[in-house]
Amino acid sequence: MSAAATKPGLARGGVDLGGTKIEAIVVDARNNVLGAARRGTPTKGTPAGVAAAIVDAVREACQTAGSDSSELQGVGVGSPGVIDEATGAVTSARNLPGWDGTFELGATLAAELGTEVFIGNDVQVATEAEFHLGAGRPYKSLLGVFWGTGVGGGLILNGKPWVGRGGAGEIGHMVVEMDGARCPCGRRGCMEAYAGRAAMEARARKRAEKGRYTDLFNLMKERKRTRLTSSIWAHALEGGDKLAAQIIDEAVVALGAGIASAVNLLDVEAVIIGGGLGVRFGDPFAKRISKAMLPHLFHDEQPPDVHVASLGDLGGAIGAALLARRARRTVARTSARG
Amino acid sequence: MSAAATKPGLARGGVDLGGTKIEAIVVDARNNVLGAARRGTPTKGTPAGVAAAIVDAVREACQTAGSDSSELQGVGVGSPGVIDEATGAVTSARNLPGWDGTFELGATLAAELGTEVFIGNDVQVATEAEFHLGAGRPYKSLLGVFWGTGVGGGLILNGKPWVGRGGAGEIGHMVVEMDGARCPCGRRGCMEAYAGRAAMEARARKRAEKGRYTDLFNLMKERKRTRLTSSIWAHALEGGDKLAAQIIDEAVVALGAGIASAVNLLDVEAVIIGGGLGVRFGDPFAKRISKAMLPHLFHDEQPPDVHVASLGDLGGAIGAALLARRARRTVARTSARG
Repeated sequence: MSAAATKPGLARGGVDLGGTKIEAIVVDARNNVLGAARRGTPTKGTPAGVAAAIVDAVREACQTAGSDSSELQGVGVGSPGVIDEATGAVTSARNLPGWDGTFELGATLAAELGTEVFIGNDVQVATEAEFHLGAGRPYKSLLGVFWGTGVGGGLILNGKPWVGRGGAGEIGHMVVEMDGARCPCGRRGCMEAYAGRAAMEARARKRAEKGRYTDLFNLMKERKRTRLTSSIWAHALEGGDKLAAQIIDEAVVALGAGIASAVNLLDVEAVIIGGGLGVRFGDPFAKRISKAMLPHLFHDEQPPDVHVASLGDLGGAIGAALLARRARRTVARTSARG
Repeated sequence: MSAAATKPGLARGGVDLGGTKIEAIVVDARNNVLGAARRGTPTKGTPAGVAAAIVDAVREACQTAGSDSSELQGVGVGSPGVIDEATGAVTSARNLPGWDGTFELGATLAAELGTEVFIGNDVQVATEAEFHLGAGRPYKSLLGVFWGTGVGGGLILNGKPWVGRGGAGEIGHMVVEMDGARCPCGRRGCMEAYAGRAAMEARARKRAEKGRYTDLFNLMKERKRTRLTSSIWAHALEGGDKLAAQIIDEAVVALGAGIASAVNLLDVEAVIIGGGLGVRFGDPFAKRISKAMLPHLFHDEQPPDVHVASLGDLGGAIGAALLARRARRTVARTSARG
């Protein structure tokens, strides 16, 4: 088995394409990580520039794994936006630069990397990774909640992904407050308007501007960051920052209401909490979220299990690599001319 | 086919056990209704008294169909409460008298009726009826929303019922307002706290006691009813009652938020609106609910179709009769000694 595991033809690539960073890995047949590389996601430019950064990251991951991208069985990419799995085209990936329209991400990457490329929804592939390889393994039905810049959701029902007509899992846009806070999506009262990192930052800024004391923005400057990262939130909380604690409390209350609503509808066995904030805050917050769900659970005598995603930051890339294993669809494979 | 359809052995019974009335029908192999009978649900007494009323109703439905209950292929019952489908036991049917504990409804009815009895969740069987025979026929995935005394939900995903661990579909208890109105279930901010008929009545009474003018309670007295029925709400609305209109508006807004939340999570093809209020208010309100969903739908470019349940008041009983067709489980059959 271990010999087979290192045969280049059985290695696969996985890419987690996020708004902040691109995480690329190479895994063997048993999903052990052989190599990894990270790039900052370009914040300006075009989809072609993002694709070039992905190619760079995959090539570096291959180098550390001692292989070449053209030797990979395939590369999976977990992407934001609306995905056409059959063609590998990605539309309206609005947290990526210049990506309001459609870009042939799969075909572009396949041409550069010299192997087949499979594109899937970023949150759904991360959920599938937790289901097959992570904290979700004991369960047949689960809800993945990815608590980061936004709040994304993925579903496994009776052992299979549920994507609806392609747009399921938008747990961040379940309404927890009619006529409530403005969400980054433009709507009102979505769970993400209270719990998403971007919305939390906007809430913090607004209250700081009104004179509330907080260390959050000083920490941001000290660390030369342009936004309040998960790590800054965690640091402020540890330092006893009252505004940070209050805004995180509000996020936990909203997560409790929204996730409990999803459980009331679906009665899944487990909830897996991932994403930047979810992984950074870890078990104590999984417990707090679980407690915040309880007052809203209709069947409170059998609450679902709540766990932190066990694959951590690499879960998205590992899930993306599973796409290449499944090879359930074919993206036009172009010979490497680029 | 039509000869087979009238063969007694292929006829089935269906019972919709509601908090207000018991609806019993006999259908042929093609689900045509051969006979029907209705009883008021006992408001005092014990589960045994409710079972006796069910037996009465089924026997009368059999008489009008020209058959005897012992000749039926089986009888299905859509019941509230927590149902053990394997044994036919019903627990905590709290809108039925004296039903806090467990009652062997399936075995009791089987002994009296001399045929097999199958118990299912009332809302889920009504959803399955709409899926197989009603407004849901064109779809593979749908959400049934039963807008009556409470607000219940049923799910069909990829052509199959989804019940989770047995408790799925509680759409009425999705949270639409954190720290919101008190729900009849005791929790706060549930959709049912704004949209359920019982909660709407409580809201109307509270505002009337505070001096708001309304005809609702006069209509109730005139009609010698003890509660505000769907028909009274509809009548008040037609008469231009402003308080009734306001409370119904609030219900529609809450239904829009809650159903859109469910659609954001599941991306089903269609929503079927049934229940006492849903069927009474009909198409104009399905349109209003659809419109109220739109501001909250994440994929507003492809909203689900929204229809009124086409089987109307008999949907629950027809769905229950389907349980006997599927005969997917066996309830201990006792010979008719009673």
